[in-house]
Amino acid sequence: MRVFIVGTGNMAGAIATRALAGGHLVRLIGTDPVKAAALADALSERTPGADVAPAVPDAVGSADVVVLAVPFDRARQVVTEYGDQLTGKTVVDISNPVDFSTFDSLTVPADSSAAQQLAEAAAPGTHLVKAFNTTFAGSLVAGEVGGLPLDVFIAGDDAAARDQVAELVSSGGLNPVVVGALRHARELEGIQLLHMALQTRPEGHGWMSAIKIVAP
Amino acid sequence: MRVFIVGTGNMAGAIATRALAGGHLVRLIGTDPVKAAALADALSERTPGADVAPAVPDAVGSADVVVLAVPFDRARQVVTEYGDQLTGKTVVDISNPVDFSTFDSLTVPADSSAAQQLAEAAAPGTHLVKAFNTTFAGSLVAGEVGGLPLDVFIAGDDAAARDQVAELVSSGGLNPVVVGALRHARELEGIQLLHMALQTRPEGHGWMSAIKIVAP
Repeated sequence: MRVFIVGTGNMAGAIATRALAGGHLVRLIGTDPVKAAALADALSERTPGADVAPAVPDAVGSADVVVLAVPFDRARQVVTEYGDQLTGKTVVDISNPVDFSTFDSLTVPADSSAAQQLAEAAAPGTHLVKAFNTTFAGSLVAGEVGGLPLDVFIAGDDAAARDQVAELVSSGGLNPVVVGALRHARELEGIQLLHMALQTRPEGHGWMSAIKIVAP
Repeated sequence: MRVFIVGTGNMAGAIATRALAGGHLVRLIGTDPVKAAALADALSERTPGADVAPAVPDAVGSADVVVLAVPFDRARQVVTEYGDQLTGKTVVDISNPVDFSTFDSLTVPADSSAAQQLAEAAAPGTHLVKAFNTTFAGSLVAGEVGGLPLDVFIAGDDAAARDQVAELVSSGGLNPVVVGALRHARELEGIQLLHMALQTRPEGHGWMSAIKIVAP
């Protein structure tokens, strides 16, 4: 799979780590090319034999999966700017539209979600998929938490696109949990609001915990 | 703590099991007194020395905590019928307002929750607390899942009432996770919708899994 990641922050690096662990090609698109090159170098050193490099935005046409590893507001700009270059592609929204001044509410209407708003902003035929919004970067890099594989919750309207993200997730050693249509991104963003808010309190786990469906 | 449980089904029995494990007094209020007596007998046998018995609705005045272990629609009737007998008390809503014909949506408005609607239906001064909605009965009876203590997510507007439920939860060997105000019941009901829907699909866990925040 050719995985293009937009962003050069902690989540971009963490998702790239999992994608490379799964043997996928990774290209990094950053607003700052120097940062993208530095992240590619760091990932290369961490995963011998990894096919990872920086890329320019126009290269996105050759991607199988595009991961928007940027905050919600920036993700909205990206899908607008990229326009029909994303048509037919699987585009992954990882964002959490949290009011970070309070960690007490989402910034999207109660009957919507960041993922649905991105789908509305994207060119027709773009297959928006929500994933990786409940996994913090630290545990993603580790690939597990408390000795258990991370759950990656996946929501999307296009079944093939959901399956593609599930394959990306499982090849990277994680546990995909497909929850259904894109509108269920709301529930995923909702629980992550509570999970993030916990990290700001004494009972938090230093942004290293993960939400999981634990089975007997 | 004097814990009154309204309901005689699987969740009533499971929550009673945890409360008795914590050394609390349990009284069971059922629409069918025979069922309440039978459940009390079964719980007595399971937990030697347990103080558990059936009770009539009017006895609820002596409760410290009242658990509505009934479906949402019935819970709304109960808080209305009990009226100001619940004033000043901690009343726990465990319900999931799921459209059970599809397992694909909630039956409450997007900006509300079962818990908030019960709070509106209850007499003023009733301290509604959401808890136990993400834990299935089987794992509650076991007290754990996959070797880990169950998380019980707690939302409520009254801090003392939240703390009381957290104490009930931890004394029963479970892990309380206080998430904040009652309006955050929405997020708890939302994630449980997805968790329940999973059980209806091949990748489900036979209604024995639990949602947990797993820490390193």
